[in-house]
Formats: sequence, C-alpha cells, structure tokens
Amino acid sequence: MDTADLGLPVDVPSTALFTDHYELTMLQAALTAGTAGRRSVFEVFTRRLPEGRRYGVVAGTGRVLDAVENFRFDPGVLGFLRERSVIDAETLDWLAGYRFGGDVWGYQEGEVYFPGSPIMRVEGTFAECVLLETVILSILNHDSAIAAAASRMSSAAGGRPLIEMGARRTHELAAVAASRAAYVGGFTSTSDLAAGFRYGIPTVGTSAHAFTLLHDRERDAFQAQVDSLGRDTTLLVDTYDVTEAVRTAVEIAGPELGAVRIDSGDLLLVAHRVRQQLDELGATNTRIIVTSDLDEYAIASLAAAPVDAYGVGTQLVTGSGHPTCSMVYKLVARAESADPTDPLVPVAKKSSGGKTSVGGRKWAARRLDEHGVAEAEVVGTGPVPDDLRERQLLVPLVKDGRVLSREPLDVVRERHVSARAGLPLSATQLSRGEAVIPTEYV
Amino acid sequence: MDTADLGLPVDVPSTALFTDHYELTMLQAALTAGTAGRRSVFEVFTRRLPEGRRYGVVAGTGRVLDAVENFRFDPGVLGFLRERSVIDAETLDWLAGYRFGGDVWGYQEGEVYFPGSPIMRVEGTFAECVLLETVILSILNHDSAIAAAASRMSSAAGGRPLIEMGARRTHELAAVAASRAAYVGGFTSTSDLAAGFRYGIPTVGTSAHAFTLLHDRERDAFQAQVDSLGRDTTLLVDTYDVTEAVRTAVEIAGPELGAVRIDSGDLLLVAHRVRQQLDELGATNTRIIVTSDLDEYAIASLAAAPVDAYGVGTQLVTGSGHPTCSMVYKLVARAESADPTDPLVPVAKKSSGGKTSVGGRKWAARRLDEHGVAEAEVVGTGPVPDDLRERQLLVPLVKDGRVLSREPLDVVRERHVSARAGLPLSATQLSRGEAVIPTEYV
Repeated sequence: MDTADLGLPVDVPSTALFTDHYELTMLQAALTAGTAGRRSVFEVFTRRLPEGRRYGVVAGTGRVLDAVENFRFDPGVLGFLRERSVIDAETLDWLAGYRFGGDVWGYQEGEVYFPGSPIMRVEGTFAECVLLETVILSILNHDSAIAAAASRMSSAAGGRPLIEMGARRTHELAAVAASRAAYVGGFTSTSDLAAGFRYGIPTVGTSAHAFTLLHDRERDAFQAQVDSLGRDTTLLVDTYDVTEAVRTAVEIAGPELGAVRIDSGDLLLVAHRVRQQLDELGATNTRIIVTSDLDEYAIASLAAAPVDAYGVGTQLVTGSGHPTCSMVYKLVARAESADPTDPLVPVAKKSSGGKTSVGGRKWAARRLDEHGVAEAEVVGTGPVPDDLRERQLLVPLVKDGRVLSREPLDVVRERHVSARAGLPLSATQLSRGEAVIPTEYV
Repeated sequence: MDTADLGLPVDVPSTALFTDHYELTMLQAALTAGTAGRRSVFEVFTRRLPEGRRYGVVAGTGRVLDAVENFRFDPGVLGFLRERSVIDAETLDWLAGYRFGGDVWGYQEGEVYFPGSPIMRVEGTFAECVLLETVILSILNHDSAIAAAASRMSSAAGGRPLIEMGARRTHELAAVAASRAAYVGGFTSTSDLAAGFRYGIPTVGTSAHAFTLLHDRERDAFQAQVDSLGRDTTLLVDTYDVTEAVRTAVEIAGPELGAVRIDSGDLLLVAHRVRQQLDELGATNTRIIVTSDLDEYAIASLAAAPVDAYGVGTQLVTGSGHPTCSMVYKLVARAESADPTDPLVPVAKKSSGGKTSVGGRKWAARRLDEHGVAEAEVVGTGPVPDDLRERQLLVPLVKDGRVLSREPLDVVRERHVSARAGLPLSATQLSRGEAVIPTEYV
C-alpha cells in the first residue's frame, strides 16, 4: 500500500498563513507602487555553518515542494486577513487568485552544503516570490538542522542501525519532520507512528518502564510481552536490577530473544556485562539496544562496545546543540519590470553589521581534486567555467509553478551517503573545526 | 469575530498517531495479559531544570486538552496500523473504540514549576493513559521550553513590548505553538499570521531588506511603504547607510513616522545615534524597534538604550539554548484491577543510573514565607498538611474524559506574571544558578 493513499495524518489545507505579517504588507506596498511585478530572484543560503560543524545537509526540499503547491489563500484565510485589517481590499483580491507561477531551483535533497551555497533559488515576480519566504525558511532551517545532526550520528554509528525516538522531546509535528530528516541523514527507523504513516519510514518499538511497573513482578511483564509479541521482541532490562532482568529475560524468551534495551547507567560498561551474560546464557544472537540521551559523541564512544543499535531522542530532534540553521532568503537580483528580456540587476544589503551578502543570480558547483574528492564549493554569477559545467549543484525543482518531480526518501538518503563520501575524510571527524572545503566566489 | 469560527489553519483530524510505536505494542501485551485495565496514575515531571535556570514555565496545557479530545483512531489510521502489522486484530478493535475516559489534573498553564513538580497527572486504566504519553510530552516539552525563554526575555525587557519573529527559524507548525508559548511567557505580539489566526495573538510586521532592494532607491521604497501603509508604519533603516535612511524616512513620513527598525550593527550604539537623530528631526514620537539575534542577555544589555520594542526570533523559538524540557511521563501508582476501591500501589524504577523517580500519586503546593513569597515547592503523597491546603497547584482539567474548561490565553498570560512575581527576587536574575526555591518531598 502506498502510504500516500492514506492522506496526511495532519491535513494542511493551506500553507499560506505560515507567513510573516510583513510579507503581506510589503506585497501591498509593492502593488500600490507598481513594483510588485518586477522580475526577482531570491536565494536561500547561510552565512555560516553552526559553530564547529564541517558541512551542512540539505533536507526538507520535498516538504518545500508540498508547501509551495499548497500555498493559496482560501476564503477562511482571506476573511481573517480582512477582519484583522492586515492588508487592503486590492491586496486581498490579488491574494485570492494567488498561485506561485515561477521557478524554483535547488540543491538536491540530501546534498551537503557550505557557507554561501545557494541552496535554493526562487524566481518570479517580487510579489509571488516574497510570500514564500517564511515557509521555505521554516522548513529548510528546521529539517536541515536535524539532518546535519543525524548525519554526524550516522557516521559515528558506523553501520549500526539508528532509531529515531525523539517525538516526545519536540513539537508533535516538528517530530514528524524530524523523523523524515533523520532518515535522510542516515537513521534507519523511527518510533514515531505519524512519521511511518506520512513518509513510510519503518517504525519500531521496544518497551517502557511503565510496562514493567504495571505488573506485579518484572517476570510477569516479560512473560506478557513475549506471549503477546513473540520472542523476537525487545525487553527493557533496567527497571530494577539489570543482571537479574537479563537472566529472567532469557529464561522466559529463550536464546531466541530478539533484543534487550538498556536505558540508563554507564552504557559502555553495562553493554559489555550484558553481552557477556547473554553469551553465557546462550543468547548469542540477542541484540543489545542502548538509549539514554545519546548524541554523536556518546555514540562514537560506544564504537568498541557490543552494541547492536542506538536509540536517539533529544539530541537528534534538537539538532545536537544546533536546533536551527541560519539560512536566510534574500533578494539577490531584480529587473525593472516583469519583462523577461529586461536585464536582472544584482542587489545586496550594503550596511555594516556583518549581514551583507553577495548580489546576483548564482550558480554553484563542487570542484573536485585529481582523486575525485571535493576541494571547493564554487559559487558564481557569471558564466559557468567549462570544467565545472558537469558539477553544478542547482537543479530545476519547479517550472512555471509546476513541481517537476518528487523523489522517494530512499533516493535522498542514498544521495546523502554519496555526497558525504565525496568530501575530504576530515568531514566526518566529530571535533570542532571549519567547513571541510572552502567556498570560492567567482 | 471569534477566530475559533474560522477553524484551524491546520486541521488535525486526529492526534492518535503522534504516538510512539511501543505505546501500542505495550497496550497489546497488556490486553493479552489482562493487565491493561489496571487503574493507573501517570505523572509528568522533570528531574531537573535546564542548566542554570531558576524556574520553569508550564505552557501547552490548552493544547494538551485539544490533543486528548482529538485522540482517536479513525479508519485510515487503523488501516495503516493493520497494514504495517504494528499490532494484532484484537488491539485494533480495542483502538477503534478508544476515547480517553479518565481524569487529568495539572498545574494551571502559565504557572511556574521546579524539579519534581508533578505538572500533570493522568489517571485511568493503564491502556487509556499509556497511549497519551508521547503527545502530552511533545506538547509540554516544546511549549514549556519556549515559554521559559520568553519569560526570561520579558523580564529582561521590563515593560517594553516584545515581538515574536521566529517562524522562519523553526518548523512551520512548531512556530505557531512557539508564538502561543511566547505570548504565555510575556511576549506582546507575533509576526506569524498562523498564530494570529489560530490563537488570536496580535500580529505585526515591519519591512524586509528585500523591499528596499526591490526599488531603484531607498527613498522610493520608503515612499511606497508610507503611501500604502500610512505614516504609522515601521521603516527598515539599515539596508545602506543608517543615518541617511533615517533622514530620508522622516523627510518622507514626517514626524508622524511610526517607527524605524534596526536589524544589524551594534544595536546599543546605533539606537542612541538614531534616537538623537530622530529627536533632532522632530520625530520625537517615532519609536525604535531593534532586531538581530536577540536573546535575554542582549535585551538586558539594551535596558538603558532608547529602544521601544524588541523583535526576537531564533533565540526565542529555540528556547534560548534549551529547546526542550526534560519532562517525562511516568507510571507512579497502579492498582491490581480497574476497581476504584482497589488500593493504588506506588511504583518507581529502581535501578541505578540517575533515572530513579518517586512513586505514588502526588499533590503539590507552594509554601510561602511570612511576606507571601514562595519558599518551597512541596510535593507529597500522603494527606495534604492543613497549612498547604489552600496553596495546592494541581487542578482538575479533564474529568471522565470530558475537558472541564478552557482558558483564554490572556488569563494564562496574566497568571504567569503573578506566578513569577510570587517567587523570590533572584528568580529573574539572568545569571546561571539553581532553582530559586527547593523542592521538598513529604
């Protein structure tokens, strides 16, 4: 069954109100001034990576495409804007007919990025493009932050499976997007049923302390779980005494016991002890799943421990210290009219204060060294040099308002693995450092 | 017009899938074992405040009530669970009829809390209560984190207005909840139209650099904005040269100019210069709004600056360093059956590892000193001492599955001001420290 047939668990009839008030008042002023139709180019980029990070991960592109398609002003929304006197009657009329009719180019989802990378480029009239600012940034800033943390965790985990378990630590719908972004960044599965429903991500579960405490004895809880879910289940063994729990678990489920979960204590030490005990009991195939405030560093520290899977919650959904990216959506060029033959004029904020940016409609390409390893992110406004023509990073996503294609998440996930593998080796070291390749402007 | 008449901008047909996989498999195992009906008490609490914080702020309670009411398994959801073989047929049948029929008690929204405070208590059968874990924690962990940051910012701002502008820095729906939580914590307005629509929070807007850059000259942009939006608008003055922009702004709008916004540079210095210039130009009533990665410390540092309002984005919606609380949902007591006369047995995880908790169904009260200032959070499982009877913090929110009442956000917002004012003075100091009052268990 295609999960899309089920519809959204959360039906978003319109994304048009995921918008800052000023987008609409700027629209009104531009309509009045006759400048709303000027052909414009907006770009999404970040001036810096989060402190110490070597690369960023583009995630949320697929959600942006949904948001752009569903960005329309229905009567309820227009009624609200009228009631609140946010904008005048002419602007309301204009919005009633709004559908984005421009073009969107972007880095492919799962690709890596660096400071200045033009991750997404939105082209059309000023009016149609400016309205999309807030929702595009919301999605890319959130999802890319989670994917970047996930990517670091997945490289720290080596080939071991990673389960996303953070739903309870973030907003209930941010959690669904976080599961998706985590999957893009290399996670294997999620505990979040809504993410399974919406995106088809495999869902898994273990058991909570409450289940053990509900029963008169730990033994009764284990028996109940095995009776109902079979031997290939995961028993939580740290409610009382871990050693006793492991003994009871194998007694009840036999050596076919699927896994045990350890959720507290010194995981390195406990994992070793539990592995030894399981092996002595003949449960050599029983896996050990560890959870408990893991981040990429804790995961890396368990590399030599007999751990079979990691469950990660808080640190994943909060971006492991960086819950948002600092992506911005900037007007970089505009013409004097809507006429496509009218030349684009590069524009950029000029004042001091560290927020300047580079004007002009940009291309981007990743230059490789002789071994095929990335050596620079090249961003330019002029013609693309011949040697970079095949290494361009921006692809068309939306043409004349029509979404060109959608990608299965597994494709995105594989792309991320390749993109990361194409970076210099130091990309995946966990210690703090600079962006692993420089950004060059030409 | 009541904004509720407009419906939700985001229609959530059911909250039932905002649930971890294991809640459903535990349910299945408990149904099989005959323990699912055991009368149970779950409590939401945190073992610690975020590092350095003096108090927490309860936020999201109203959203929890919505989530509990809308927690039901419709055919689409059941079809997904069947297709994925998450649970067996008997459990699916049980879920088809699910409606929460128990009781919920909680701290009133806007109240402050401390480590161990039983912020919410959910009572009913194990089966009906365990399912609510994920969505309740998602909401309270997210919203309370934002409200706590907002509260620190609002006390740092003194009486000056605070505008929530963070939508672009967080998930698009987390942003709506963040606006709500910020309002609870003392913010005055939001840029997020969806938050205005959904919760009636006042929305405001200024202008972006893109609007200035769209026009041939800054002067044209200002003229367009004033022509369309009137003199009482906010002009963004830092696209090129601030001094020149302020001069142009007053030239165009006259001394009736509503406000100018400064979004970069040394805000303290620039605000002083701009104030002086505005005054010299006769625009003595023109306000100064500052934005640019503000947090509570930056806001406090501008206390002596001629600033009239703060716009806060990233740091607000990411909880100013603490994007989530560490609230947990724990089974603290259960009976051997559903029979209400069957005694409740306190239960708690026992193993080492720092995750132990205190068993038993709890009450909580705030003890005051002779001046009426809070001196301890008292949490107990026995009878409530006479002197604390009137100071109890848990109130009934849901009775037999029915939501007892809903509160307007303004009531919640005022409650927070009172609750914070009832704490010792050091509560609002920004420097890192311990919880401002101790939690005592009796």
